Amino acid sequence: MKSLKVGLIGFGTVGTGVYKVLKSFDNIKILKIAVKDINKKREIENFDTNLLTDNPYEITSNPEIDVVIEVAGNVEPTFDILKDAIKNKKHIITANKELLAKRGSELFALAKENNVIILYEAAVAGGIPIIMPIKTILSANKITKIAAILNGTTNYILTKMSEKGMSYETALKEAQELGYAETNPTGDVEGYDAAYKLAVLSTISFNKKIDINKIYREGITKITAQDIKSAKELGYRIKLIALGQVLEDGKIDVRVHPMLVAKKHLLAKIDNATNSIMLTGYPVGDLILTGEGAGAMPTSSSVAGDLLVLASELETTQNPLPQTVCNHSDYAEQINIGDTYNEYFISITASNNPGAIGLIGTVCGKHNININTIMQKGINNDNTAEIVVITELSKESDIQNALKEMLNAEKIKKINNLLRVMN
Amino acid sequence: MKSLKVGLIGFGTVGTGVYKVLKSFDNIKILKIAVKDINKKREIENFDTNLLTDNPYEITSNPEIDVVIEVAGNVEPTFDILKDAIKNKKHIITANKELLAKRGSELFALAKENNVIILYEAAVAGGIPIIMPIKTILSANKITKIAAILNGTTNYILTKMSEKGMSYETALKEAQELGYAETNPTGDVEGYDAAYKLAVLSTISFNKKIDINKIYREGITKITAQDIKSAKELGYRIKLIALGQVLEDGKIDVRVHPMLVAKKHLLAKIDNATNSIMLTGYPVGDLILTGEGAGAMPTSSSVAGDLLVLASELETTQNPLPQTVCNHSDYAEQINIGDTYNEYFISITASNNPGAIGLIGTVCGKHNININTIMQKGINNDNTAEIVVITELSKESDIQNALKEMLNAEKIKKINNLLRVMN
Repeated sequence: MKSLKVGLIGFGTVGTGVYKVLKSFDNIKILKIAVKDINKKREIENFDTNLLTDNPYEITSNPEIDVVIEVAGNVEPTFDILKDAIKNKKHIITANKELLAKRGSELFALAKENNVIILYEAAVAGGIPIIMPIKTILSANKITKIAAILNGTTNYILTKMSEKGMSYETALKEAQELGYAETNPTGDVEGYDAAYKLAVLSTISFNKKIDINKIYREGITKITAQDIKSAKELGYRIKLIALGQVLEDGKIDVRVHPMLVAKKHLLAKIDNATNSIMLTGYPVGDLILTGEGAGAMPTSSSVAGDLLVLASELETTQNPLPQTVCNHSDYAEQINIGDTYNEYFISITASNNPGAIGLIGTVCGKHNININTIMQKGINNDNTAEIVVITELSKESDIQNALKEMLNAEKIKKINNLLRVMN
Repeated sequence: MKSLKVGLIGFGTVGTGVYKVLKSFDNIKILKIAVKDINKKREIENFDTNLLTDNPYEITSNPEIDVVIEVAGNVEPTFDILKDAIKNKKHIITANKELLAKRGSELFALAKENNVIILYEAAVAGGIPIIMPIKTILSANKITKIAAILNGTTNYILTKMSEKGMSYETALKEAQELGYAETNPTGDVEGYDAAYKLAVLSTISFNKKIDINKIYREGITKITAQDIKSAKELGYRIKLIALGQVLEDGKIDVRVHPMLVAKKHLLAKIDNATNSIMLTGYPVGDLILTGEGAGAMPTSSSVAGDLLVLASELETTQNPLPQTVCNHSDYAEQINIGDTYNEYFISITASNNPGAIGLIGTVCGKHNININTIMQKGINNDNTAEIVVITELSKESDIQNALKEMLNAEKIKKINNLLRVMN
């Protein structure tokens, strides 16, 4: 294997893990580490603080460095730093899903121009081998569908809500106390993190650029303990699913939202902070890849894996890994959520009057919505009833119109939640 | 991608699938296909029968052919055919797990000498990406454990026994009628097929040659409907598990046998003919890769994936994929089953006399075996009772000695089954 000299940008939890893992490989030498605060105490044995710099451009301009590993996160100033590294002919290994989702196509074009490669196994699903397998051993496949749990924080919260009947707020608080969720949890709980990963994964799976702004996104903040209970009674778990699929007309449907997942489905069985990706392709069929989606060690496995592959390839060729070069010229034609077809779970609070269920049925029928299951369990103390409906495959815009019409009826007090269903 | 000319050896179900999949790639041309019976009717559209030969050496000696794909199976005469191909500087892609397990190390040495590579993603777990990921993106890991369901036939049979309370014989018959099991099922049901795959997987995971003859192997033919019922009552499913692990002293424990798998474990949830591999490594943690382990299409995905990677690499280098070159000089020190430590499930038929349970407890204690769970449910019509014991971690040789001692006691009529347990 070729010896490689590395500059590391970012030295938080993940960066420290990468440093520790790479130290054990004789052919890898870390020349410099860019950090925010050069004086911060680091809990690493025998650490040479001379490695540190607070100027990342010392790394990107260092002619000795072959590869820049970026685990700093954020789009700015990281984009400019990596641009500079690429112009200086450094190969890039990055875990930065947000950067790739928002400005990846600029970076890949620049990398192509400069004859360097960008590897990013760690950007999607931490330690799970997915990016390189799709580009190599699975490359004979036409991938038509991705359904994945790509965010550990939200899966942890939903697991606790399901296991212990907790409210969203209580489960979030517990996740924050245990370090699974950040103080400002927006990026996770509103689905941004999963959407970035899905954009990256969809691009390489479907061979089209994905516009991150056109990914429909819904987080888990509106899921109630009651939703989870009703879903369970009907044989489902609620998971935040990142979904990407190629439709028959070639258009692409990419979105992140909570779904009821039938409890027999393997994705329903993925608990706590674990990630899992189901890929459907021809000829391979369904694959489900499961593992730790975050954390210093799993992420380091992917960063170091990319680096060792590069070192091995550079031993025999100046143009390593042609299959990993991203070269998508066209944007996917992404459809709007209103044009998608789904089965739905609708939770409705109705007044305890005769005819509420009749009204729901009539409105659904009028909007081409077939009801599969309907459940009402008794009457609440305030003389209302919760009615839960599961529909057959229906068009989202029809569902939205039906819900509007229901809300205009006096008998319907509230639409508690509308969730999509995966069987 | 480089254009590659291919010779295909074997044209049964898998060979036909590979042919169909490869036809869609412009850079791949199949020049010749070696079959047993050149006159057999083939159900393929627009098929040019001039491609067929019944002499595989026409392929191995054809100077135009770059790559030989072998999906014929068997050790003889396949070994000699592939040897000839390698000597003629053909790269090899094979799905032949038995050949690799029994004579792989000779082939790999010869390939190294002749500067060609052998790829075999399809030999283990059909369409699941596992061989190339271990050699590339996971290569920074020290893999310490494999626990896998590698044989679809036995998993199908065990699933039916569990779901429908069927006997082994009835479930086997159903599997044969549906084409999941062969007329002579020995290779599957006695664990040979899983052992070959495990040998291949262990070699690349632990970087040591594995002696297939030293793999302890037990099939599923002795599993009864009663075992499955008792296991279920105790919270377990029974699966045929291929297990490989590196012990603390560096010795290697490799074996195939049925195990009780705790129902919360993801491997317990893998049903029907699906395969699943759990890998434990540092730094990646636990990975579980699940998919279709056999069949023409999944297998073709892996064969074609190997071929496309090769084509991509040969575009830029004469020495493609250095990481995939197998180069293990040392044999693993494989331990005997008697020296392994396991938790055990023991099913015992005792006579309905006072003291049977006391005797079991006493004998276990004498042999350093701690009992975790003991269950007896009533008395049989013939005045016997089935007693089921689950032990704490114990040494296999202690268990075997304890069972011998129990059998000498008049109160113990029969040891119905001894199975190992995975929690």
